[in-house]
Amino acid sequence: MDLIQVFVTGGTFDKEYNYITGELYFKDTHLKDMFTRGRCTLNVVVKTLMMVDSLEMTEEDRQIIIHNCKKNPAQKILITHGTDRMVHTAQALAKENIGKTIVLTGAMVPYAFGTSSDGFFNLGSALAFVQVLAPGVYIAMNGRYFHWDAVKKNPNTGYFESTE
Amino acid sequence: MDLIQVFVTGGTFDKEYNYITGELYFKDTHLKDMFTRGRCTLNVVVKTLMMVDSLEMTEEDRQIIIHNCKKNPAQKILITHGTDRMVHTAQALAKENIGKTIVLTGAMVPYAFGTSSDGFFNLGSALAFVQVLAPGVYIAMNGRYFHWDAVKKNPNTGYFESTE
Amino acid sequence: MDLIQVFVTGGTFDKEYNYITGELYFKDTHLKDMFTRGRCTLNVVVKTLMMVDSLEMTEEDRQIIIHNCKKNPAQKILITHGTDRMVHTAQALAKENIGKTIVLTGAMVPYAFGTSSDGFFNLGSALAFVQVLAPGVYIAMNGRYFHWDAVKKNPNTGYFESTE
Amino acid sequence: MDLIQVFVTGGTFDKEYNYITGELYFKDTHLKDMFTRGRCTLNVVVKTLMMVDSLEMTEEDRQIIIHNCKKNPAQKILITHGTDRMVHTAQALAKENIGKTIVLTGAMVPYAFGTSSDGFFNLGSALAFVQVLAPGVYIAMNGRYFHWDAVKKNPNTGYFESTE
Repeated sequence: MDLIQVFVTGGTFDKEYNYITGELYFKDTHLKDMFTRGRCTLNVVVKTLMMVDSLEMTEEDRQIIIHNCKKNPAQKILITHGTDRMVHTAQALAKENIGKTIVLTGAMVPYAFGTSSDGFFNLGSALAFVQVLAPGVYIAMNGRYFHWDAVKKNPNTGYFESTE
Repeated sequence: MDLIQVFVTGGTFDKEYNYITGELYFKDTHLKDMFTRGRCTLNVVVKTLMMVDSLEMTEEDRQIIIHNCKKNPAQKILITHGTDRMVHTAQALAKENIGKTIVLTGAMVPYAFGTSSDGFFNLGSALAFVQVLAPGVYIAMNGRYFHWDAVKKNPNTGYFESTE
Repeated sequence: MDLIQVFVTGGTFDKEYNYITGELYFKDTHLKDMFTRGRCTLNVVVKTLMMVDSLEMTEEDRQIIIHNCKKNPAQKILITHGTDRMVHTAQALAKENIGKTIVLTGAMVPYAFGTSSDGFFNLGSALAFVQVLAPGVYIAMNGRYFHWDAVKKNPNTGYFESTE
Repeated sequence: MDLIQVFVTGGTFDKEYNYITGELYFKDTHLKDMFTRGRCTLNVVVKTLMMVDSLEMTEEDRQIIIHNCKKNPAQKILITHGTDRMVHTAQALAKENIGKTIVLTGAMVPYAFGTSSDGFFNLGSALAFVQVLAPGVYIAMNGRYFHWDAVKKNPNTGYFESTE
């Protein structure tokens, strides 16, 4: 069974509520728990590259993501990422012509916020897309997949839209 | 955007807890709520064909499923189904050579049981698979897809396994 | 701060869903997790006496409960119990004239079933009642407390009702 | 059965996550849903006085709370309130010598955040305390009740502590 490499970069997906400050922050990723709960039997390896809000992601962070996608032996890579700059990172990855199937996904509501989060659904769809799509860079959100060069996030609604 | 027809047949996916009797039963499907929570922007239509435990599904029930898959204009069909006889229904559908992409999915823990259910993850993956797989009949469980003729449910573990 | 002894006996409160058999069963109690989540700073000690459905509770089981309530040094005792025979056990305890404040509580929906369960609310109210009520045997359900000899469970609605 | 008046003032208890801005905000109170889920059969009336973070609560807001507590016919009043200024409002109420049992409660994690919130437990305990405590002003948090003049919130831990 093909290896699927998951790179965690943070984003709303993995945010937690700090009950002392009332603010959101990052602790540990929920990805491994999510694969267990999803009863996933794929050959998935999870590695946390960083835990950042994508609005605060630097170009150096993006180079770390690119470097890891290149050097990793997996041909199928899933990246969890903040939604605000997901398209930006997808574009940066696409320019590298890595030749692998790379799918970015995220969430509009933190997974830790229970039954209101879209994260678990998004993870299921992203994991399916990474298995069957041809090499390239994609975004999986709202049940759909988008090519890296044909998508934007609508900042008013939070939905990803095709620009084709 | 292609129409995706969802047929609900019941199964653990949509079971509820009856607090008077302490038993599980069916009320309404959660599918529409799940697509809303998943922030799905696909062209999805949900229709409930029946609400049964797949162990109690009759051949007549299967004929209703087959009939609906045939007559429906959608080329992409997702069926929620109890896991115990999911393979059986997939085989019955495959024999009909319907020429559409038909994906069956389900859950090991009811969606209504909150953060322990695999259902939301399975729905995300099944919805992704139905969009990209070639015409045929498939089962989407455990993050994977299986061809109808190469899968069995392991009754001891609850996992679906490839028979290839 | 006064010691509050919690005795766990099972009941719907602590039931889990077995995804292989589709039936409910007992594993470990959730009580300690619930006190943590409730951020409880009381001097609470939790002890599991048994894990049974109250319909299957034997007189021997009731003797174990009575014995533990008598010998335990705490003057305030909270018992989690199946709702179907909660009144019966309350009556058995009352006949012993133990001279402590004993509050029984339970749930109509298992705590493990997430945001549909009444259990966490019931635990909060039972814990409050046991701190402030005079010695005696009480049932705490539906936000209320009932004296052991003035309450019955309505089997049709699942609500506890005053018989006064 | 005695009337129990619930006044909603906001606080973390009723905050929601805004998935567009990533910030917390107020929409509608969850109190009625919580009483339904708690299967509460008490004579409870819920009225929203305001929806504010207690750090932003003005003296005018406090006068509205005091005015409502005075004029309302109920002898038992439960107030949901942000935790940061809960003691302050309790003190303001106590100075008015209203002669009713008034219990303030809140949450450290929003109820809407699912199975990590303490809110449902706190509501159960506050509702129990308001039924049985003598007239006066109290805070119900962490499973305990505190007299208005013998409690402070520890800002470092988020726990309420007795100052006696």
